[in-house]
Amino acid sequence: MKDTQDESPDVRIGLERVGVTNLKTPIRTVWRGRSYYFTPNIEITIDLDRRRKGIHMSRLIEAITEAVEEETLKSRGSIEAIEKRVLDRLAKRHPYRRGEIRMAADFVVYRRTPSSRRKTAETHGIEVAVMRDGRKYRKRLKVTVIGNTVCPHSMVTAGRPHIQRAVGELTVETDYARMVGLEEMVECVEESFSSPVYTLLKTSDEKALVEMMFDNPRFVEDVTRGMLDAAKARFRGARIRAKAVSQESIHRHDVIAEGTA
Amino acid sequence: MKDTQDESPDVRIGLERVGVTNLKTPIRTVWRGRSYYFTPNIEITIDLDRRRKGIHMSRLIEAITEAVEEETLKSRGSIEAIEKRVLDRLAKRHPYRRGEIRMAADFVVYRRTPSSRRKTAETHGIEVAVMRDGRKYRKRLKVTVIGNTVCPHSMVTAGRPHIQRAVGELTVETDYARMVGLEEMVECVEESFSSPVYTLLKTSDEKALVEMMFDNPRFVEDVTRGMLDAAKARFRGARIRAKAVSQESIHRHDVIAEGTA
Amino acid sequence: MKDTQDESPDVRIGLERVGVTNLKTPIRTVWRGRSYYFTPNIEITIDLDRRRKGIHMSRLIEAITEAVEEETLKSRGSIEAIEKRVLDRLAKRHPYRRGEIRMAADFVVYRRTPSSRRKTAETHGIEVAVMRDGRKYRKRLKVTVIGNTVCPHSMVTAGRPHIQRAVGELTVETDYARMVGLEEMVECVEESFSSPVYTLLKTSDEKALVEMMFDNPRFVEDVTRGMLDAAKARFRGARIRAKAVSQESIHRHDVIAEGTA
Amino acid sequence: MKDTQDESPDVRIGLERVGVTNLKTPIRTVWRGRSYYFTPNIEITIDLDRRRKGIHMSRLIEAITEAVEEETLKSRGSIEAIEKRVLDRLAKRHPYRRGEIRMAADFVVYRRTPSSRRKTAETHGIEVAVMRDGRKYRKRLKVTVIGNTVCPHSMVTAGRPHIQRAVGELTVETDYARMVGLEEMVECVEESFSSPVYTLLKTSDEKALVEMMFDNPRFVEDVTRGMLDAAKARFRGARIRAKAVSQESIHRHDVIAEGTA
Repeated sequence: MKDTQDESPDVRIGLERVGVTNLKTPIRTVWRGRSYYFTPNIEITIDLDRRRKGIHMSRLIEAITEAVEEETLKSRGSIEAIEKRVLDRLAKRHPYRRGEIRMAADFVVYRRTPSSRRKTAETHGIEVAVMRDGRKYRKRLKVTVIGNTVCPHSMVTAGRPHIQRAVGELTVETDYARMVGLEEMVECVEESFSSPVYTLLKTSDEKALVEMMFDNPRFVEDVTRGMLDAAKARFRGARIRAKAVSQESIHRHDVIAEGTA
Repeated sequence: MKDTQDESPDVRIGLERVGVTNLKTPIRTVWRGRSYYFTPNIEITIDLDRRRKGIHMSRLIEAITEAVEEETLKSRGSIEAIEKRVLDRLAKRHPYRRGEIRMAADFVVYRRTPSSRRKTAETHGIEVAVMRDGRKYRKRLKVTVIGNTVCPHSMVTAGRPHIQRAVGELTVETDYARMVGLEEMVECVEESFSSPVYTLLKTSDEKALVEMMFDNPRFVEDVTRGMLDAAKARFRGARIRAKAVSQESIHRHDVIAEGTA
Repeated sequence: MKDTQDESPDVRIGLERVGVTNLKTPIRTVWRGRSYYFTPNIEITIDLDRRRKGIHMSRLIEAITEAVEEETLKSRGSIEAIEKRVLDRLAKRHPYRRGEIRMAADFVVYRRTPSSRRKTAETHGIEVAVMRDGRKYRKRLKVTVIGNTVCPHSMVTAGRPHIQRAVGELTVETDYARMVGLEEMVECVEESFSSPVYTLLKTSDEKALVEMMFDNPRFVEDVTRGMLDAAKARFRGARIRAKAVSQESIHRHDVIAEGTA
Repeated sequence: MKDTQDESPDVRIGLERVGVTNLKTPIRTVWRGRSYYFTPNIEITIDLDRRRKGIHMSRLIEAITEAVEEETLKSRGSIEAIEKRVLDRLAKRHPYRRGEIRMAADFVVYRRTPSSRRKTAETHGIEVAVMRDGRKYRKRLKVTVIGNTVCPHSMVTAGRPHIQRAVGELTVETDYARMVGLEEMVECVEESFSSPVYTLLKTSDEKALVEMMFDNPRFVEDVTRGMLDAAKARFRGARIRAKAVSQESIHRHDVIAEGTA
């Protein structure tokens, strides 16, 4: 008996992206010799031919489950290595031309505070995607990092600036084989703010940070340009997108700047 | 034939709150002679006796629909007047001992900017609830207002402060009959920040605002105490709860202060 | 004295989208002779030349404020008419090449229930954008509508289906002058589900609706194709995008189908 | 020199809860011999005396950092053991009478599918809190679990039911020493739905699940009562709160039932 999914649809239109979203499953990765544990939010989709009613959703889940298990046992994959393996496994179970998998997670980086040199754990948002089109693979990495902006305009007109939290988002898209480090991406964003921020700050650290902020006033436009500039220099040949949102302390609304390089 | 809801449940435990949530329906209110239009997010619940399997959900919706229509035609109700009417209508359709209805919406207040005196529309979050227990009615009003904090500690230790957006939440619970103005509640919150914020600010306004901020450094604890103090003075005899959250510009996390008066 | 925004930036990269986001301000529109009140969430952005440090944010707010006031007084604008006016006003205050404004809001449609014919108010999510590029204007309307899917596969294999809430999202992009009704867009989405849903349902309505659902099993792929098909027929020449997400009742995750036509 | 925090406040009101929220830091726990990795969202608060202007926020962070490090090195703590240690460490650094720490995270449980017996990883939401009041400790555990409801009313009136995803939330509060397993709590919720849900389901599993659902129609009130009943039997003497929200497939809104036992 034919599966319902393999029947002919009433409306014969091909679809670009069909699959599963908001799936959470635990994974372990190894990057530069160190283990990381995530429970990412996953979206996986493939294209659907105009002559088929539906895709077989459970095969997407099986491809994820098996690839995660394999990579975890072998203990040497990055997030993108696991994702590529999922797409390859899936290709054996379910024909498709274009497939894509994204994982969004928290990513922890260890730092020293600026003055007292204490160790702190800093948590950023990441999203890593691998896209397969026939035999070609690309990947797209995104980091979302918190920092701040000190307004250059009020610094000049009022002699004293308004200051606020800002969120920087940097996206780098390249061939799959290209090495792109999430930690380097985080650095590109952090360097673009008036100052980076820290989870732990003793009084001397707070003083050092505030001084750095006041010495370095930045519009949200400056933050976005800074990210683009830093990422272009580090990730040559990649498609780069940057967005900064400043959660204004003098307004209810936010200001935003987006660009590409 | 008996409705399924009126049958005896497998587990004989009474429930405090059973009903409908995330319902959106348009309402019109009149307050001090002026019309307001909202599409609030509504939650309405009643208690359920241990001997009944379920409540009749559609009667809750009908009570809302009818009360909204009546008040809108008569054009003179506040949000709490509409809510009281819903609970009263419901009592005729569906027996209950304790019932509660909440509406969450955007609330617009018109202001003048501090220096150029331009008119601006400022939008705050509100939630208005009416509770009926037998023949007694109480109400609970909440406003959520955006402002800022200028850190007094860094002002002293670094000579220059970090500044950030903060969110103040003030809740006032009283007998139903007691007059409580949402606009007065917004004022209690705004006065407690280092400065209020505005949607529109020309350069002279921004200058005036930044000066006000620097003259008025506040911890998040000061903001909460300020709200409690202002609300106690204005709404005597009411139960008051205040919470301030400061979206720190030097940290990834927020700081919080909550209290009651 | 030169404004800081007009100075030369450290990094000379042009930016595509700079502006204000998460701004809430009340508007009134008139569509087919009837008034609608919204407090939309607004994003407005313009491009920034590589030789200028920043844009003048307050001019964006002023353009919104003035256009809203004018249209409200004249009482005959749609959302897109207000948005076009904002972009035109802005062009006089602040030079730009490409500008875009989006408003997201709740949109209420009145319906009759399927059997008892009661009147109900149904609230949908909408987003309306106008883009100006030089002298050319385009617009993009999106509706987000709740419905359901009855699984055709389990209907066949188990004789009984699993059923769940689904969310359909339809986007139509056209020249500014093209007439596109939000209500027609809502209909395209509702017709694509196993059945539409209602705020109020009496027992006879619920029965009619359940029968309609079971007679009309749909994969999420069918819903997306149905939206594309209906929208293509109604909005000829437009760029159409559809997305359906089914909040599976047998899984923790959602399933998704996206396509264009 | 006196710290600003230790000065006298302008308004002399004591505050119940002052501290840090939305802090994310990685932790490792050991429960029944197995390691778990989380990056929880943390809130930690203490009370503030009416005569002090503020608390020393950085000491809260230090208490977390040190306790996490210690427990991780010793590799034998549950989440609540880490939390108790944080509160104890904090008491040495910063005097307080009442303190509370909460961690919210994803929690993974492994299951077998109902028919094909495949292994699946199921991810639930949890929140674990420890409260210290003088020398007394209490704890409060919450799980948020996805399942479904099959409507008993439409089953009777229409012969065919509407079905939808539902979310169950179970909270258990006890003395700190009392053993309460998160996995047992998840079971209490899952047993209360029309059926549990799974990440992976092959056709035979889906069939088995749909049959279980149809054999077991449940109102949202039944789900809440089921949770209360199951939790009372398992966690005697504890304070129990349950809430179920059904994401109706025939309505735009949700239905809700809450109770205590």
